[in-house]
Amino acid sequence: MTTDFAFEFKSESNGARLGEISTPRGEIRTPAFMPVGTAATVKGMYPDQVRETGADIILGNTYHLMLRPGAERVAHLGGLHKFANWSRPILTDSGGFQVMSLAKLRKLDEKGVSFKSHIDGSKHMLTPERSIEIQTLLGADIQMQLDECVALPSTREDIQRAMELSIRWAERSKNAFGTQPGRALFGIVQGGDQEDLRLRSAQALTEIGFKGYAVGGLAVGEPQETMFEVLDYTTPALPQDRPRYLMGVGKPDDLLGAVKRGIDMFDCVHPTRAGRHGHAYTKYGVINLKNARHKDDARPLDETSSNPNCQIYQRAYLHHLIRANEMLGAMILSQINLAYYQTLMQGMRDAIAADRFDDFAAETREGWAKGDIPPLS
Amino acid sequence: MTTDFAFEFKSESNGARLGEISTPRGEIRTPAFMPVGTAATVKGMYPDQVRETGADIILGNTYHLMLRPGAERVAHLGGLHKFANWSRPILTDSGGFQVMSLAKLRKLDEKGVSFKSHIDGSKHMLTPERSIEIQTLLGADIQMQLDECVALPSTREDIQRAMELSIRWAERSKNAFGTQPGRALFGIVQGGDQEDLRLRSAQALTEIGFKGYAVGGLAVGEPQETMFEVLDYTTPALPQDRPRYLMGVGKPDDLLGAVKRGIDMFDCVHPTRAGRHGHAYTKYGVINLKNARHKDDARPLDETSSNPNCQIYQRAYLHHLIRANEMLGAMILSQINLAYYQTLMQGMRDAIAADRFDDFAAETREGWAKGDIPPLS
Repeated sequence: MTTDFAFEFKSESNGARLGEISTPRGEIRTPAFMPVGTAATVKGMYPDQVRETGADIILGNTYHLMLRPGAERVAHLGGLHKFANWSRPILTDSGGFQVMSLAKLRKLDEKGVSFKSHIDGSKHMLTPERSIEIQTLLGADIQMQLDECVALPSTREDIQRAMELSIRWAERSKNAFGTQPGRALFGIVQGGDQEDLRLRSAQALTEIGFKGYAVGGLAVGEPQETMFEVLDYTTPALPQDRPRYLMGVGKPDDLLGAVKRGIDMFDCVHPTRAGRHGHAYTKYGVINLKNARHKDDARPLDETSSNPNCQIYQRAYLHHLIRANEMLGAMILSQINLAYYQTLMQGMRDAIAADRFDDFAAETREGWAKGDIPPLS
Repeated sequence: MTTDFAFEFKSESNGARLGEISTPRGEIRTPAFMPVGTAATVKGMYPDQVRETGADIILGNTYHLMLRPGAERVAHLGGLHKFANWSRPILTDSGGFQVMSLAKLRKLDEKGVSFKSHIDGSKHMLTPERSIEIQTLLGADIQMQLDECVALPSTREDIQRAMELSIRWAERSKNAFGTQPGRALFGIVQGGDQEDLRLRSAQALTEIGFKGYAVGGLAVGEPQETMFEVLDYTTPALPQDRPRYLMGVGKPDDLLGAVKRGIDMFDCVHPTRAGRHGHAYTKYGVINLKNARHKDDARPLDETSSNPNCQIYQRAYLHHLIRANEMLGAMILSQINLAYYQTLMQGMRDAIAADRFDDFAAETREGWAKGDIPPLS
């Protein structure tokens, strides 16, 4: 196994990229979907189950972990991998995005962002340096620079100010990260839906130099069309030989479209959250198991799936568990959704290797469009 | 595999009984603890996990299942075993106990009990005949007569009235049950803490004749001492060659004391409920993982346990999961508790076979009394 962090760009299929990131903790096959382990756990799943879905890497949230159980505590306990029983690579975000969405009494200035915990009201300060210190204490294999992310739509002035600040924070983050063998720091491109600002951000970050580049400031309220337009002009401005990570995205159709536009990595809470709400992702599209059409349906969710959870349980049983708010419903559907996401990623990787990505995407979308099997009559 | 329901009383050790119930769906080694699968799921656990803890049989609640998803629906879907993915024996209660504790606007008379659902306020009626009909629709291998259970303390008059009614309902239940090859109907001894009433109930039920006998009306608020006193005079009045089931009991120490007094079967929500609240049952006794002493403790719960969940996870991690209200905390601790209960039952069975039950009980209680390993200094 390697002692370095490295990315190999293997092949391409009409824009979609096949690659592999090597780390001392294992390989990450790209395009990759990273399940979100917010508070050191992918909600409702045992760590072994997460791996068995095909995940090579999970994501941890700096904001949650710094507040509870605390970064110094996790370091003292042997690091996040040991704590969460996940020996493979972990990416942590910078904490900035969740400070802005979850914390109280936020105050942002050049130095960083101060805030009060949403859990107990305690005061905290997150600077580029402190964010890296926390991520290093956690032991993250891939760390993210602190940035400022604005929602869309926003004024050009706000977008530009946040983008310029994020560049200055990128430089401070890189200095704070220093040299960590086998680990990587990623910069984050901002610039909202403004082409020239995205290009300015990408260029500035490339000049600073990172082992990978994220596209931030998307999946913040804009339509999918806008997201794809931004990717259309942003990814060509990023180095070919570094992984590209689209933060906080998305639904299966978003993943197909973003891979097509040269993205290599994704994370999103959507599959587990949707599972807890009774939605199952399948080759038939999204199936809402709360729907009354399932209550007398003894058929499994998808008997053609290789995932046992799609075969073992009756639709009527899943409907019952979700209606009765039983944990097992959320457990099964979270597993089904993450497994579907990983199957989709594997399908994309195979299709790129065979140089038939567009066909694969079309076939996959066709399956979703056909929809679920007919209800029982 | 047998096509009949049969009980073999194998051996005895100073009051404690070793046996085996044979059913077409598998053997039940006694003394047995039955995990409670209230709404067709043992909360927070996959069915495979439940079996892997060593459970031979689970319990389903007629009250919950008749209201949601409904007995006729479960029958139409292939029965409770298929619905809940549990192919081994299932015992269902009569629904009576939970009507009295959960339902609204209960009205009890000679015919049965009418009530409103706690879920949607819909009106229902449970008679001895309807209870058996529901349990048969569910496909339960062991069915329970409808009875009236009064809390303790109660007046002798109330206890006697309920006991006499329960005898009349026992007879009606037996008639309703008819002949169901491979399945069994159990009668329920009532009589509160009144010796003569318990003996009258046991005698009347024995005369009616059942394949097994439950002791009801305990674990309803009385001290453990009272429960043991009642067992001391009740179990000798029951046929030696039929299984005896103590309903709704209990904590590990209750199980030791009741097996000593000739009980063969138990059910209780306690292990999974305690797990959801952060309590772990171990050979060290109960460990409260919410306690701050665990928050920096990297040690596993019990490194001498053969249960991987007791070895893999740090106490600090379990503390964190429970504090953060993460599903995985409830999942792991429910598994740990049910596995501990099954290990305890296996220990009792082995000790009875070796005719050293009293020594085993003393050693086990000694381990609990010693308590947890010392905190980190």
